[in-house]
Amino acid sequence: MMPELEETGKENIPIELTIKKAVEVICGKWRLVIVHLLRDKTLRYGEIKRLMPGISEKVLVHELKQLVELGMVEKQSYGEVPPRVEYRLNEKGRTVLPVIDLLGQVGKVFI
Amino acid sequence: MMPELEETGKENIPIELTIKKAVEVICGKWRLVIVHLLRDKTLRYGEIKRLMPGISEKVLVHELKQLVELGMVEKQSYGEVPPRVEYRLNEKGRTVLPVIDLLGQVGKVFI
Repeated sequence: MMPELEETGKENIPIELTIKKAVEVICGKWRLVIVHLLRDKTLRYGEIKRLMPGISEKVLVHELKQLVELGMVEKQSYGEVPPRVEYRLNEKGRTVLPVIDLLGQVGKVFI
Repeated sequence: MMPELEETGKENIPIELTIKKAVEVICGKWRLVIVHLLRDKTLRYGEIKRLMPGISEKVLVHELKQLVELGMVEKQSYGEVPPRVEYRLNEKGRTVLPVIDLLGQVGKVFI
């Protein structure tokens, strides 16, 4: 098990509950792709949009907002003209990366 | 990487596509809990329903149907009265178990 998860002190929570919470938080079609893109770099909104041709503006804005509210991604705004906004994955967000890697593998079984 | 995934010959498929397919196939709030329950036993419909108090009949029937159509679960009907129907996880279904275990851990971070 990943070390940073061992000390959560939440060992007795039934796995059905933690699975459902993880699915609720993590399993958005686009959400995991955004986290994957932010894996090892800070990106601006426009850069993320260009890397995700299939996503609409509305959905991307929503998903980024959700990721920030969930405490997985940090948003940095610079008081410049035109405005510059950057997104970065934080430690909580990084706990999801192993799931993404595994999903990336398992997804092949179903293609 | 899990051995049975290595020989898929689908190594060049972009991870964004495989993540999306995995999320589409796997990430249903109830679906993963059903797969988890079938982890090491064959269960009848009634047994699954009792183990999942929060799920409606309609949703459970739908999710089991989806799991069978996705080739993850096998359904065995016995010509008895009253009818007996059993569900069992097959090899394709078992490829999802590591994701469930990981989601079970990561979900704690968000509780």
